[in-house]
Amino acid sequence: VTHGKSSIGIDLGATNIKAALVSAGGRILIRGAMETSARGGPRVVADQIAALVTHLSATAPGERSRVRGVGVGCPGLVDSGVVRTPPNLAGWDEVPLQAMLESLLDLPVKIENDVNAVTLGELRHGAGRGYRDFVCITLGTGLGGGIVLGGKLYRGPIGSAGELGHVTIKYDGPRCRCGNRGCLERYVGAEYIMRRAADKIKAKWRNGEMAKRTETPTTQHRARRRIGSVSIDLTRLDKSQLGQLTVEIIGRAARAGDPIAIETLRETGELIGVGMASVVNILNPELIIVGGGVARAGRVLLDPIRQEIRRRAFPFPGRFVRVVRSALGDDAGVLGAATLV
Amino acid sequence: VTHGKSSIGIDLGATNIKAALVSAGGRILIRGAMETSARGGPRVVADQIAALVTHLSATAPGERSRVRGVGVGCPGLVDSGVVRTPPNLAGWDEVPLQAMLESLLDLPVKIENDVNAVTLGELRHGAGRGYRDFVCITLGTGLGGGIVLGGKLYRGPIGSAGELGHVTIKYDGPRCRCGNRGCLERYVGAEYIMRRAADKIKAKWRNGEMAKRTETPTTQHRARRRIGSVSIDLTRLDKSQLGQLTVEIIGRAARAGDPIAIETLRETGELIGVGMASVVNILNPELIIVGGGVARAGRVLLDPIRQEIRRRAFPFPGRFVRVVRSALGDDAGVLGAATLV
Repeated sequence: VTHGKSSIGIDLGATNIKAALVSAGGRILIRGAMETSARGGPRVVADQIAALVTHLSATAPGERSRVRGVGVGCPGLVDSGVVRTPPNLAGWDEVPLQAMLESLLDLPVKIENDVNAVTLGELRHGAGRGYRDFVCITLGTGLGGGIVLGGKLYRGPIGSAGELGHVTIKYDGPRCRCGNRGCLERYVGAEYIMRRAADKIKAKWRNGEMAKRTETPTTQHRARRRIGSVSIDLTRLDKSQLGQLTVEIIGRAARAGDPIAIETLRETGELIGVGMASVVNILNPELIIVGGGVARAGRVLLDPIRQEIRRRAFPFPGRFVRVVRSALGDDAGVLGAATLV
Repeated sequence: VTHGKSSIGIDLGATNIKAALVSAGGRILIRGAMETSARGGPRVVADQIAALVTHLSATAPGERSRVRGVGVGCPGLVDSGVVRTPPNLAGWDEVPLQAMLESLLDLPVKIENDVNAVTLGELRHGAGRGYRDFVCITLGTGLGGGIVLGGKLYRGPIGSAGELGHVTIKYDGPRCRCGNRGCLERYVGAEYIMRRAADKIKAKWRNGEMAKRTETPTTQHRARRRIGSVSIDLTRLDKSQLGQLTVEIIGRAARAGDPIAIETLRETGELIGVGMASVVNILNPELIIVGGGVARAGRVLLDPIRQEIRRRAFPFPGRFVRVVRSALGDDAGVLGAATLV
């Protein structure tokens, strides 16, 4: 009987490996993390994961014997314990990660696509609890997706289902890194959000709006005061700072009432809404869970998504679907991975 | 025990009602049909369906007692026996068709969306036999879709899943009759295929290519001779005939080697491929079944769909999916409806 035992969830990213010892009820008991030695190749990364597992087991006296197994969420196409072509891990063309980890560890190991793991996390412990048919998207470098149908993760026959970032929203649009043209991700990946904001900032510069700084609208001041945030004005960034713009800064600026940031996230939300309206017409989901860094901006991003779905999707499923933020945030990956075993 | 009994399948369309008495093995025993009295409203149409059922039972001596029930495929959103907002049936905002038919007939009745019924037909008796995860599209006035996942029809929580014609392929594209912009259907519905061909014909006229008729390419002549078809040259149509162009004529002309018809169906196939590449990235289906009038054109349409999926979808699911023609053709609707009971 495995019931009641804890398990270890690993969230393998191109930058960091996050790990957590998780109770059967979905509580994180201990955390661990390290930088991914991505350039070391799969063997080195497998050793890193094994070290994290050993570390978590060792720092949890009495837990070792109770660990049920290790679940790993990792980028790329995952099928039968084998990882294929993860976008940001060079040299991982076909890696039998499950077998590699099981040979290093005395525990059962299960591998799943990272966004599928996040989706499982939200299903079991997060915003998807109690729902049977929903999709989950994560906004980061790319737009990842996971699908739950009938209360279970839908993986598709070869495990590649749920690539919601690679829904075409403009067939003659710009080239995506996946090779297609006009993918949703090509418009709302972090890089493109930053480009969108930078273009608006530059346009303001050109129009000499730097001088109008004192004329900041009252609503903006009010918004700032209300959330007690430091004053943010994206047009105050100088050229050197523009290169350091992140989606987190844009998100914070939007929450603080910055018009450029708000406009950037409104346009981003509308484009996400275009793609999600297609998903609504195809799948009729009860729920769309939005996670990832820029989702922290909240309603500034979510309201335009909702609005665009209402505008574009069929009336019944369009009014039926709810759009909500991830309930687990950054923990969804490790929590979901832990549910694999 | 219902095993071994026959059932009656009804394919309710805005123009015709088709009916068939179908054996448990999927063989059509008797057929019936009549023009839909669409202007008479739901009550009159229900009477028509009841008359067809009675007719089929009466002309099949000994079958009456063995009829298991009646399944009806009808346009619109169908949930719990109620039909909502079918696109081409005015005044059918909310019709309890199942209850209406059960009160007229002494048989159990099940209602399903028409394209879902077609999809069920292909699953049980057609091109989808033996497949667990596939989609089916029907090309007609619009582009309808049905989804089978895990060997079962996927309807979604309110029964509206599978609207594959209303996947956005160009977010700033032309307005679709559904209210959205740039829907796949807005490019490949029958009307738009005919418009596309007519535009090409007019362009040829403008370029004075009528005079070049004798220079028809050899391959075209060969294609005509090979399939033993009458010679078709779309540029020979005069203005009055242009209004009588149908997708069936375009399909036949393409099979006969007509360059304009071939180009029209290639472009149509490519656009369908754009939408299906999104579906492949979302659902990772094993199979895409293409039905409806224009699908009779065969490879002229299907090859561009396949090519565009290979170009646009992720490599693994893109190479994995097969694109095939409907195996049941016009019978898919009645056969699928018969499987409902």
